[in-house]
Amino acid sequence: MGPGPSDIHPRVLAALSRPTIGHLDPAFITMMDELKQLLQYAFQTSNALTLPVSAPGSAGMEACFANLVEPGDKVIVCQNGVFGGRMKENVERCGGIPIMVMDDWGKPVDPHKVEEALKANPDTVALAFVHAETSTGALSDVKTLCELAQKYDCLSIVDAVTSLGGSELRVDDWGVDAIYSGTQKCLSCVPGLSPVSFSERAAERIRSRTSKVQSWFLDMNLVMGYWGAGAKRAYHHTAPINPLYALHEALLMLQEEGLEQAWARHSQHYRALAAGLEAMGLTFLVEERYRLPQLNAVYIPAGVNDAEVRNLLLQDYNLEIGAGLGEFAGKVWRIGLMGYASRKENVLTCLSALEAVMLAQGAAINSGAVAAANRVYSS
Amino acid sequence: MGPGPSDIHPRVLAALSRPTIGHLDPAFITMMDELKQLLQYAFQTSNALTLPVSAPGSAGMEACFANLVEPGDKVIVCQNGVFGGRMKENVERCGGIPIMVMDDWGKPVDPHKVEEALKANPDTVALAFVHAETSTGALSDVKTLCELAQKYDCLSIVDAVTSLGGSELRVDDWGVDAIYSGTQKCLSCVPGLSPVSFSERAAERIRSRTSKVQSWFLDMNLVMGYWGAGAKRAYHHTAPINPLYALHEALLMLQEEGLEQAWARHSQHYRALAAGLEAMGLTFLVEERYRLPQLNAVYIPAGVNDAEVRNLLLQDYNLEIGAGLGEFAGKVWRIGLMGYASRKENVLTCLSALEAVMLAQGAAINSGAVAAANRVYSS
Repeated sequence: MGPGPSDIHPRVLAALSRPTIGHLDPAFITMMDELKQLLQYAFQTSNALTLPVSAPGSAGMEACFANLVEPGDKVIVCQNGVFGGRMKENVERCGGIPIMVMDDWGKPVDPHKVEEALKANPDTVALAFVHAETSTGALSDVKTLCELAQKYDCLSIVDAVTSLGGSELRVDDWGVDAIYSGTQKCLSCVPGLSPVSFSERAAERIRSRTSKVQSWFLDMNLVMGYWGAGAKRAYHHTAPINPLYALHEALLMLQEEGLEQAWARHSQHYRALAAGLEAMGLTFLVEERYRLPQLNAVYIPAGVNDAEVRNLLLQDYNLEIGAGLGEFAGKVWRIGLMGYASRKENVLTCLSALEAVMLAQGAAINSGAVAAANRVYSS
Repeated sequence: MGPGPSDIHPRVLAALSRPTIGHLDPAFITMMDELKQLLQYAFQTSNALTLPVSAPGSAGMEACFANLVEPGDKVIVCQNGVFGGRMKENVERCGGIPIMVMDDWGKPVDPHKVEEALKANPDTVALAFVHAETSTGALSDVKTLCELAQKYDCLSIVDAVTSLGGSELRVDDWGVDAIYSGTQKCLSCVPGLSPVSFSERAAERIRSRTSKVQSWFLDMNLVMGYWGAGAKRAYHHTAPINPLYALHEALLMLQEEGLEQAWARHSQHYRALAAGLEAMGLTFLVEERYRLPQLNAVYIPAGVNDAEVRNLLLQDYNLEIGAGLGEFAGKVWRIGLMGYASRKENVLTCLSALEAVMLAQGAAINSGAVAAANRVYSS
């Protein structure tokens, strides 16, 4: 129950360990086609260029920037946590010029500031922001921000690492141009893959670049040849066969549950957890209307030893919760309710364990957390 | 029995599907330390900067070039197959200047040509070549080539994707500066990770670069913070937990067998396979003294339909062999004997199936392949 990797369903672990076959085997190619359709469903898109990058979310981020940003290109980067800062690094390393729009950690991206930046920089080629900030648990408004990108005629690049499968996300309806995610958060698959999707507008920009993509491994012009439509696939690199089996199974489970049902489930278990945490007297970092259901950052109460609590939870309860990052290190915990981990058993275990460990430390907290959570479940 | 991914031992598949824990969990950190030691053994090195890149071999290649080559740097690239060409792409995309040393496909890299190129280009910063060319099955002389790199005061970058665990390789004794491999060949682990190792000389060059590494994901200055020594690890990206379990197990099995014993096993099964193939009348692409035991490229006999034979082997015998690449497409097959696939059962199955399928096509081949292989085993 940290910020990811999340728990993996036994079905997904079983799929992971199926015998490895060749990356050009006809049976594997068939699975790739299914995987692409399942990813299109998860992203709610009909984008042809939708595939899992063969590396973790950071590489998915890099795939978006390295393919869409050419030297000298201006990119507006919104930063309201750790991952906006990583986007800035990516723009710079591609030779682009980042224009930063800063918001406080724990706040969503402010569309007014973004519009000011777009007005002031009419030659901007892309607007980049994080949908769900894993470092704080703040949700930003993808639809409004992508509308701004379209209004000012630039591409949108969206980080959906923690949102995909857990929060409402509609790539086509909201006009997203490039998006990347991770498999180890709300999809509850093993870490190591990064689903990406590019609109036709973004794909056209990649095809018509004047300079080569600086990464051979992440060059979508080449990757498309392997993941593209049709039976004939050109070898690019050896795909991570077994993790792709696992992703196929995880996405199949998402489709069986239904995407909107998965969003609703994440929301329900968040409400129960929040009721319990608040009953203990804990307060959230993020204002209620901007909170992610899958990543709950709460302030560590006074007199409680951060590291000791997390160590005891791990040792005595086999339970991981996340530490704070950056300016919130030592000040907040980040409790994940992602994918398969977003269920009643986890919520109640976490609340009772946290209450017991903090009370043993002599913390001035209230009891009754589990009862408060159960009231949400029975309402 | 293609050019990889190779068969995976059940112990490795079982390790792969162990429950996923956090990438900063103390138990996982302990496993990372063990994994590093096991990799140092496999590479025969004491290099501190030895770790698995969280992506396939192509990304390991890119990690070596992106970290060691700065814009304007001259790199001598030896090309005697597909993967030398990919090295050239990497040098160019890093802003470097590739000086090509060309040898025919199927031949090893010629040290005399390399020395001429080094003499003609005294400002060369690195010499790059492939130890074991997967596209042809040719082995080059790492020791001699690295001695040349040292003589002319430049770094050596070695592709060991197909050699690690299958052919003699001694990183420290031979003076290799940067080396990358894959997990899906002679280590018989799942594809998706790329073990790399950098000498202190190479690591110092990375630390003292004047420009930032163009890839954030592959920047060893940052990756070192997570894989470095000591209990305190800085988060860089979410490691691919489960594939790392599998690699740990595969390397443990290599250590149990013994590295030299693994090399000898690859050699023995190659000799049996070669005896069988030659008994049928098939001929090798590569001269005997330069042949890789783990990758056997043989000419397709006249009158035999390449694709049909490979399809029948797959459908009727559950057996994959590889097609030719580049100028050898349709002309050779590539039969792999890598890692767990390098065993008697596979050699005999392959020979009998290939003989049966080709005879059914009316090919003019001799019988007696299995008997010839068995004579090697009983000698």
